[in-house]
Amino acid sequence: MSSPSPVISLLSDFGLVDPFVAEMKAVILSICPMARIVDISHEVDKFSISMGAFLLAEASPAFQEGAIHVAVVDPGVGGSRRAIVIKTRRASYVGPDNGLLLPAALPELLRVFEITNRSMMRREISMTFHGRDIFAPAAAHLACGQLPEECGPEITDYIKSPYGEPVFERKTVICEILHVDRFGNIVTNLSQNSLSQHDISLTDKIVLSVGSRRFSTRIVGTFSDLREGEVGALFGSHGFLEVAAREKSAAEKLRVNRGIPVRIHLSD
Amino acid sequence: MSSPSPVISLLSDFGLVDPFVAEMKAVILSICPMARIVDISHEVDKFSISMGAFLLAEASPAFQEGAIHVAVVDPGVGGSRRAIVIKTRRASYVGPDNGLLLPAALPELLRVFEITNRSMMRREISMTFHGRDIFAPAAAHLACGQLPEECGPEITDYIKSPYGEPVFERKTVICEILHVDRFGNIVTNLSQNSLSQHDISLTDKIVLSVGSRRFSTRIVGTFSDLREGEVGALFGSHGFLEVAAREKSAAEKLRVNRGIPVRIHLSD
Amino acid sequence: MSSPSPVISLLSDFGLVDPFVAEMKAVILSICPMARIVDISHEVDKFSISMGAFLLAEASPAFQEGAIHVAVVDPGVGGSRRAIVIKTRRASYVGPDNGLLLPAALPELLRVFEITNRSMMRREISMTFHGRDIFAPAAAHLACGQLPEECGPEITDYIKSPYGEPVFERKTVICEILHVDRFGNIVTNLSQNSLSQHDISLTDKIVLSVGSRRFSTRIVGTFSDLREGEVGALFGSHGFLEVAAREKSAAEKLRVNRGIPVRIHLSD
Repeated sequence: MSSPSPVISLLSDFGLVDPFVAEMKAVILSICPMARIVDISHEVDKFSISMGAFLLAEASPAFQEGAIHVAVVDPGVGGSRRAIVIKTRRASYVGPDNGLLLPAALPELLRVFEITNRSMMRREISMTFHGRDIFAPAAAHLACGQLPEECGPEITDYIKSPYGEPVFERKTVICEILHVDRFGNIVTNLSQNSLSQHDISLTDKIVLSVGSRRFSTRIVGTFSDLREGEVGALFGSHGFLEVAAREKSAAEKLRVNRGIPVRIHLSD
Repeated sequence: MSSPSPVISLLSDFGLVDPFVAEMKAVILSICPMARIVDISHEVDKFSISMGAFLLAEASPAFQEGAIHVAVVDPGVGGSRRAIVIKTRRASYVGPDNGLLLPAALPELLRVFEITNRSMMRREISMTFHGRDIFAPAAAHLACGQLPEECGPEITDYIKSPYGEPVFERKTVICEILHVDRFGNIVTNLSQNSLSQHDISLTDKIVLSVGSRRFSTRIVGTFSDLREGEVGALFGSHGFLEVAAREKSAAEKLRVNRGIPVRIHLSD
Repeated sequence: MSSPSPVISLLSDFGLVDPFVAEMKAVILSICPMARIVDISHEVDKFSISMGAFLLAEASPAFQEGAIHVAVVDPGVGGSRRAIVIKTRRASYVGPDNGLLLPAALPELLRVFEITNRSMMRREISMTFHGRDIFAPAAAHLACGQLPEECGPEITDYIKSPYGEPVFERKTVICEILHVDRFGNIVTNLSQNSLSQHDISLTDKIVLSVGSRRFSTRIVGTFSDLREGEVGALFGSHGFLEVAAREKSAAEKLRVNRGIPVRIHLSD
């Protein structure tokens, strides 16, 4: 089912100074010259699988049917972690088996294959750059008509999620920050799902704390319910609790960064 | 008048960490697969319409006839500001009606249309991301053959300029910095035009002040008239006063940034 | 020998805020609409010919036969330095005659031409932006079928290398840092070649010093020979001594940056 102008997206933690991304693109175009390449982000925090997974899940629904997404945040490169391709109803996902691809692929996931087919890789494979030597060529071959099934054997024991679960204590939930976007919106790893599992429902108000500072914030349906500058919280389109301020940076107001835990204090 | 390989340029204040730009590209390619996309800049200061407008005006003359320019610096998204397309002699400009497109479009401007045609937008339109849901699809439809006239009704009361005027006091003109480029050249909002309107002609020397520091600089015809390291001023290709140092960063020497007012002291 | 989908790579010190790179792409696409453009890096340190040269040499082997590489780190623009095109067995390199292209082109270099053919340039040529006005259009013409031989006369007195040589003192070699990559690996300008010329062979251990701090490091064959966190040195694929730490940033551990000299102390 190869399209006349297949689209390949790229996401990595390679940054834009080094030529790593260019090398991946050069390999793709040498195998599949008509591929259209779209960068999702190469500014994922170094080795942050959860941030990469979040951005990929955010971006991929905008892509057309048949898109091939390559993602490389890969602290285990050169070790025993497998290379995989995930086939979903509308797309393919290529990358390491470390949970990075799952949040994006999960809603329409069909099957997962380990990439073992040597003819879909580069001739020489470095220990440290599978993005260029395994993932990029596999994606290019998929873009030009090969099938996920040709990559290697189907597997079912792939890693299911890149996100740590929030820690539930008696009156507190300790959350991780998955991403702080350019506008200062803070995405936590607290999902509606895990709240239900703990029989907790957040009502109209929560108290957040970051370091020694505490903030009381309203839970709203949409951010336009907030007054200008007010900080509020809602469950975003990915089901995670997000904290934002209207026309202001919530991250600046609360002085939080990725890597700092956010505590949510439950009322009695 | 659709070209066999139409070019769409993108400019925004989205940065390169978040996947916003990728989502716009994905939407464009799903509507017009043969479009060639060129990024002008996504590092416009957040919400800085004047900086975005300056960069767009600087870049767009290099593009071929028929190019479609999409620009999104859009603090009013989701409010009442209109979405517009500007048709010029050589190009089309798509973006918010906040002055952002005007400096680039003005020299060859023909007509301006409000984008209201629902069939040229994405099916679902978010309150916060018109770049992806309105501007990108409209541009893709234009690239693939639809006309600016099909976007919606012609309007004439669009916002005419994103630049604040310099403030003229008795012996001083207070200027805003539109942009400081990578080489440290400083572009102010002081135009030849507004000087003439105030019957001022800057002769061979001006005194600038920034904070409590004052600098005397020569006005030159071209920067190669400067001695190495000397700071000088000239009217650039956009008609604005620029301050630069030969083979040095004028911004560093004068310790200025965007956001700091620059005063020009007129001689008696 | 023009390909149906020629690939042009771009490298510069222009950064991603200013529209300079976009202007080059716009010019290329207006001349050769089917060119595929790949950015290698635009975050080369300003005016650092050696860093640009290193990145170009690193990236170019991944590109397909017939690729055209345009590189612009050009402190001498507007002066007397020549514009050149280098023809190699597999590729063409376009840029200033300041050594920038040589490390990449050298292994398969065939001939070097000065670009003087006015019909392969933009109509108007600015004093300060040959990237847009000379290099980009020349590359686009090459991509669409013109030959390096048509650019201008062959020359042999081009600049042969952008790298300074390490300084050899009695018991010390003073090295320059060419590049520190995203993972903190440090590439020096000390090559196997210059060691042999000075009859020095580095054995299993070297002592580095940076500022007043000294470090003893092992020389290894591959970085996987290192223990986690250990700092070691090896000769990389380009023949230069590299210092790295396993799963850590060597640059952070040693607190070095580009621009700081690294001393290697020879044992007696």
